[in-house]
Amino acid sequence: MPTQIDSAVLLEAARRGDRRSLARLITGVEGSGDTARTIVSEVYPDIGRAWTTGMTGSPGAGKSSLVNHLITHARVAEKTVAVLAVDPSSPFTGGAILGDRVRMQDHIEDDGVYIRSMASRGQLGGLAAATARVVMVVDALGFDEVLVETVGVGQAEVDVASNVDTTVVVVNPGWGDAVQTAKAGLLEIGDVFVVNKADRPGVEETVRDLNAMLDLNTVQVWRPPIVSCIALTGDGAQDVWSAIGEHRAFLEQGAKEQARRMRRRSEFRRALTHRYKERANQLIASSAGRARGEAVADLELDPWTAADELAWEVIR
Amino acid sequence: MPTQIDSAVLLEAARRGDRRSLARLITGVEGSGDTARTIVSEVYPDIGRAWTTGMTGSPGAGKSSLVNHLITHARVAEKTVAVLAVDPSSPFTGGAILGDRVRMQDHIEDDGVYIRSMASRGQLGGLAAATARVVMVVDALGFDEVLVETVGVGQAEVDVASNVDTTVVVVNPGWGDAVQTAKAGLLEIGDVFVVNKADRPGVEETVRDLNAMLDLNTVQVWRPPIVSCIALTGDGAQDVWSAIGEHRAFLEQGAKEQARRMRRRSEFRRALTHRYKERANQLIASSAGRARGEAVADLELDPWTAADELAWEVIR
Repeated sequence: MPTQIDSAVLLEAARRGDRRSLARLITGVEGSGDTARTIVSEVYPDIGRAWTTGMTGSPGAGKSSLVNHLITHARVAEKTVAVLAVDPSSPFTGGAILGDRVRMQDHIEDDGVYIRSMASRGQLGGLAAATARVVMVVDALGFDEVLVETVGVGQAEVDVASNVDTTVVVVNPGWGDAVQTAKAGLLEIGDVFVVNKADRPGVEETVRDLNAMLDLNTVQVWRPPIVSCIALTGDGAQDVWSAIGEHRAFLEQGAKEQARRMRRRSEFRRALTHRYKERANQLIASSAGRARGEAVADLELDPWTAADELAWEVIR
Repeated sequence: MPTQIDSAVLLEAARRGDRRSLARLITGVEGSGDTARTIVSEVYPDIGRAWTTGMTGSPGAGKSSLVNHLITHARVAEKTVAVLAVDPSSPFTGGAILGDRVRMQDHIEDDGVYIRSMASRGQLGGLAAATARVVMVVDALGFDEVLVETVGVGQAEVDVASNVDTTVVVVNPGWGDAVQTAKAGLLEIGDVFVVNKADRPGVEETVRDLNAMLDLNTVQVWRPPIVSCIALTGDGAQDVWSAIGEHRAFLEQGAKEQARRMRRRSEFRRALTHRYKERANQLIASSAGRARGEAVADLELDPWTAADELAWEVIR
C-alpha cells in the first residue's frame, strides 16, 4: 500500500494521466487503512467538478449495455468519463465484473474513459462509503462524468446509486416490474427512469404503471421522466443521455449545491458512526469486554450496567 | 416515572401480585431513562426461570387467537402466563393492540395471566432491547411462561420473536405463503411451525412446501415440527402447546444454557453499540459537530478527518 509520501506521488502521476497510479490510488481509498484517509484528505478540496450519475436496477436489466452507450454520448460531447461498477455480493474478481468489462469494451482503448470494478472487501465504513471515496478521487482528478453502476437493487446498492447528482433507475417491461421497483424503494431515489428492452411486449403497461406511481408523489419539485430504450442496440440511449442532462440543468438552477452539501454532511455522519461502531467492537473483543460478557451471561451483571462500565474502562 | 427508591417499592408490591405496580415497572423498563437501567439491574439476578416463547407471522395469520388458547393450556398445566403483544408500527394505543386484548379476553379475570401491549416509543436501544427488558421483568417476577407475540414479520419483529427460548412461526394455507415465510427469513428462526386456519384449502401443499424447505437445512440439530390448527375454534392448539413443550424438553437436554448465555451476551453488545450510536448522534448535534459539518460541506475538511477531530474533541 502507498505511504503518505507515495500517495502524493501517485496523485501527481495520476493527474498527468498515468492509469497505473490512478488504479493504485483507488485501491488505496477502497481500503480501510490510513492510506484511505490520507488520499481523501488530499483530493477532498478538489471535488465537486464532475457530474455524478448512479445507475441501478435488477441484475440483467441491461445497465452495463446502457452505460456503454452513455459513454459514447459523453465522448461525442467531448467529456471524459469514469465508470465504477459496484457489486456488493461479488468477491474481488467475480463473473459480473468480468461481464461489465466485456459489455463496455467499446471504450477500452479510449484514454478519455476509465472503467473500474469495485467489489466488497474490508472497507472503511462499508461499500457505500468506499464508493463515495473512489468517486471523490476520479472527480478530483478531473473526469467530467462519473457513472456509478450497481449490479442489483439491495439496500447497499440503493445507498450507492442514490449518493450522486442524478440517479437513473433501469427497469424492464413486463408484468410487475414496476411494482418490484416500488418495493425495492427505487421510486423515491430515481431522477430518471429507463424502461430498457423496449422491443419486448409490455412497455406501455410498465410506463403507465411507473407514471401512476410517480404521480402519487405530489410534493416533488422534479418530476422524473420515463425514457424507453433498447440498450443492446443503443436505440434511445441518446434520450437517456438527454434526460440526465435535463435533470442536471434543473439542479443547476439552484438545488445542486444544497444537495451536495447535504450528501457531504451525511458522509461525515457516516464516518463518525463507523468510528464508534468500530470502537464498540474493539471494546467487546478486549479482555475487559470478554470478562464483562461472561459476567452478563452468568447473571452477575446486567447488560446495560456492563456496557456503561466497559465504556468508562477505556474512555476517561 | 419511578425513581430508584420507587422501583424497589414497586418491585416489592409487584412480587406480592399488585398489577398496577407491575404495569408501572414495565412502563419504566420500556423507556429510555435511568429508570430502565435501575429496574433491570434489580431484576437481572432473578431472570432465567420462565420459559420464553415468541410468536410471529403475517398480520391476520391468527397469532392472537392461538395465544388465547395457549394461555388456556398453560393454565390447565397450572402455570402462570405473561403475554407481551409487540407492535413496532403502532403508536401508543393502536387498533391492533385493542384487537389483541379483545381476542385474549377469556383470561382478563384470571390472576395467573398478565397481558401487556407494547408499541414503538422512545426506547433505550430500540424495540427489541425494550422487549428483552420487559421479558426480564416478568421473568424475574415469577411468571412461568412468557409469550411474546409480534404483529407482523418485519426485521424488528423477527428480532423480537427470535430473542426467546422457543420461536413459533404461524403461517396460513394457500399458494405462496410458505415462500413468503422463507423470504421473510422465518425459516431460520422457527423452532415450531404452525399452519393455522387448517379448515381452509391448501393445508397439505403448505405443509409439504414448508417440509421441503426445512429439509434443505441438513445441519440442524432440532428439526422444527409443523403443526396444523384452527386457532378460532382451538382445534389443534393442544398440539401447538405440546410441540413447544417438546422443543423445551429438547433444549433442556443441554443447549438451553448455552443459547441463553449467547442471547445475554448479544444484549450486552447491543447495549454498548447503542451507547456509542447515541454518543455519535450527540457529537454530530453539538456546536463542534455542526461547525465541522459545515466545514465538510464547504470542502474545507474531509469527512474522515472531521470525524477523527470531533471524536477527540470530547473523548480525551
